[in-house]
Amino acid sequence: MDSLTPDGLVSALRAGDDAVLARLDRLHPGKLAELLQPLSTEDCWQVMGALDVHDRARVAHFLDEEQLADLLKVVPVEDGQSLVAAMDFDDIADVIVELGEARAELLLSELDEEDRQDVRALTEWPDDSVGSRMSSGYGWLRPGLTVEQAFMYLRKHAEEAELLAEVPVLSQWRLVGWVRLVDLFSAPLQDKVSDWMKDPPATVQADADQEVGARLVARYDLAALPVVDADGDLVGILTHDDVVDILRQEQQEDLEKLMGIGGDHETDAYLSTPVFTHFRNRVGWVVGLGLLGFVSGSVLQSYESLLQNLVILALYMPMLTDAGGNTGSQSATMMVRALSWGEVKPVAKDLGRALWMEFRVSLLLAVVLGLLAMGRVFVLSGDRPIPRGLTLPNIGLAISVALMIQVVSATLIGVVLPWMAARLRLDPAVVASPALTTMVDISGLFIYFGTVKAILGV
Amino acid sequence: MDSLTPDGLVSALRAGDDAVLARLDRLHPGKLAELLQPLSTEDCWQVMGALDVHDRARVAHFLDEEQLADLLKVVPVEDGQSLVAAMDFDDIADVIVELGEARAELLLSELDEEDRQDVRALTEWPDDSVGSRMSSGYGWLRPGLTVEQAFMYLRKHAEEAELLAEVPVLSQWRLVGWVRLVDLFSAPLQDKVSDWMKDPPATVQADADQEVGARLVARYDLAALPVVDADGDLVGILTHDDVVDILRQEQQEDLEKLMGIGGDHETDAYLSTPVFTHFRNRVGWVVGLGLLGFVSGSVLQSYESLLQNLVILALYMPMLTDAGGNTGSQSATMMVRALSWGEVKPVAKDLGRALWMEFRVSLLLAVVLGLLAMGRVFVLSGDRPIPRGLTLPNIGLAISVALMIQVVSATLIGVVLPWMAARLRLDPAVVASPALTTMVDISGLFIYFGTVKAILGV
Repeated sequence: MDSLTPDGLVSALRAGDDAVLARLDRLHPGKLAELLQPLSTEDCWQVMGALDVHDRARVAHFLDEEQLADLLKVVPVEDGQSLVAAMDFDDIADVIVELGEARAELLLSELDEEDRQDVRALTEWPDDSVGSRMSSGYGWLRPGLTVEQAFMYLRKHAEEAELLAEVPVLSQWRLVGWVRLVDLFSAPLQDKVSDWMKDPPATVQADADQEVGARLVARYDLAALPVVDADGDLVGILTHDDVVDILRQEQQEDLEKLMGIGGDHETDAYLSTPVFTHFRNRVGWVVGLGLLGFVSGSVLQSYESLLQNLVILALYMPMLTDAGGNTGSQSATMMVRALSWGEVKPVAKDLGRALWMEFRVSLLLAVVLGLLAMGRVFVLSGDRPIPRGLTLPNIGLAISVALMIQVVSATLIGVVLPWMAARLRLDPAVVASPALTTMVDISGLFIYFGTVKAILGV
Repeated sequence: MDSLTPDGLVSALRAGDDAVLARLDRLHPGKLAELLQPLSTEDCWQVMGALDVHDRARVAHFLDEEQLADLLKVVPVEDGQSLVAAMDFDDIADVIVELGEARAELLLSELDEEDRQDVRALTEWPDDSVGSRMSSGYGWLRPGLTVEQAFMYLRKHAEEAELLAEVPVLSQWRLVGWVRLVDLFSAPLQDKVSDWMKDPPATVQADADQEVGARLVARYDLAALPVVDADGDLVGILTHDDVVDILRQEQQEDLEKLMGIGGDHETDAYLSTPVFTHFRNRVGWVVGLGLLGFVSGSVLQSYESLLQNLVILALYMPMLTDAGGNTGSQSATMMVRALSWGEVKPVAKDLGRALWMEFRVSLLLAVVLGLLAMGRVFVLSGDRPIPRGLTLPNIGLAISVALMIQVVSATLIGVVLPWMAARLRLDPAVVASPALTTMVDISGLFIYFGTVKAILGV
């Protein structure tokens, strides 16, 4: 069986090729959405028109928001209304903000008043909240139903459900339990739902940060996490597929923040983001650090005469700053991760434990790097004239000791800064690696010249 | 209702407190496993003994492997056997490698021969393969069943299933379709399973890298991905909860690799990893870069007399190396992400697109940083004596131009290196940020002194 191509699909449909139609019907909606991606709005709609409305809605879920919005702007109003009526509320909410208000109103007008309000409510959650990600299409049960009744009830309401794997149990709208479908399948038909439900392992409020919800899903291996309002009433579920997206976005965000890249950290948008946006996302830190560099410049300037007399010091400066930047970024990275997943908490005790551990790690690194530096001074500078009153071993010792102090202090700074950020309820990743590097550069210059002066007496 | 504590739980059970027993029964197994974590093996088993064997197996899934292994080493053989018999095969496979061979054999001996072989087979997949993560407990259907028969069949086999959300449809063992449970619930009872199944959007081979599987699940919003052997026979499913774990581990790995940290990138193990292991994970890159630093030392040394005459150049060296390291790490980070999620492919065309974009971004950054550097020279060095034959504007211009070239070249190097790694089928993240920084330091020194010599004619 040859594989389908976007153009082949369109021409086969135009020619009324039944075999292709049959294959279309078996295609996973995510797969079909990929085929539709390069097509014009018109061709795209032609293909979607060959599907029943539920499959069409599932394909819509996988389309880019822009492509879906373009489609909804031009399709006949009735087709648009029926498509919207079949879509999950969270998918509708995502796309209507891209449509004009008039068009959005028109497409929503066939929904009943309550549903329309639910969709509108979904659009109002802030971008990174659980509310903006949650689904309102879920099956649910009452605790007093028998297992047999539960199956009948679910059959009646399955069409509105996005996922049936773990099912909320509600009394009024209050969440009173959580039952795995696997358990219902293995339960005797005359048992009550309440015999098989458990307490949900956790709930999350709709206005919480999406990462909080994602971490709970990860922690308890859930297919869906119940989202509740302040009264404990169920308002939605956060499903595993959204959690995967959130974790990806967070991963992108952590990495980019660590490298001093701002912006909204969208995934899969590297090549499609305009040049000027990339520039704007990066220029902040780069310029900020450049300004901070004034400080290192001034520090260096105050040692200008020392440098003049002992040019050898300038030769080993990059080694010192690089080693500090590298080791500090390493400990900072470990801390950022441990803090953001809650392994290390922003309390004094955990800071103490991390500092004590990193102190020992950095001491080992410092000894290795110190010996390396000593060797380097002898190899590279062995044949050079040494200023009066100094010896090569002395200079080597001074440089090595400075390097060792720098490695230990940079590592500890890398522990403290993310911890402080977390303590101030900031994202620990704001302590970007470039910022840390620049800071330990500055402290490193003081350490370098201070140590050299102390040991060499110059 | 007061919240349960580990010690409270044990003493309530010893006292035979029925209210606590009832609550235990409603507790999510992941929640209960958290309560058990600080308890002694004996207390832990006492609590688990109060559960039925299926709940016990689900709690076992959430325990640390070490804690579970300790438990299985000391419990009465019959209890251990019944617990193992109720556990998912992948959970068994994870824990038996921690037990001695004799104990493992004993605990597995009550399984039938085929199951025992399946469990043993699971232990043999390499650590990062899909096979090592997949579940073999899934419900499945035959295409010719009616929907009504399908439900009856699933009810009979639900106890072995870890997840029912998307159900594989098999003919012999060959995977012929994929049906969402939601669709079966909404289907007329007399329809055939084959009327509602679709082609699975993707399959993955058991020996593929776990990340390949995780990305497919993310791409198609799956609850489970079918894992097949070379013949297309189904051998397991990769479920959403494992995917979440894989993505977390990968996130950790990407970050740590980018910072030049080696090791096995375990999650939630920062504080529990021994100091010496941390040292070993970091020392490789740090020493390697220290050695590479010999090169930058030699380069600097060859310009020693120039530095001696023009100490002002030493003052602006950190600014140049920092700016190069920062901008290069930024473009490298973006490329690593785009390559690892397939947005940018390791083909010449995509390299060209990325280079052209980054060239323009870096040009904008270079102009801003160049102006900043110019200002800095005037502000910081305005009152300093200038060597004969040179002027401050000249020196400022030379430093600024060198910085601009450095920013553009470092950015482009940051694009090329990860692309080359991907082209060589390596993980793009091996181009660790410290390595990149050290490399652009070296190229930066050539750019710096070369430009200064050309412009100032010294």
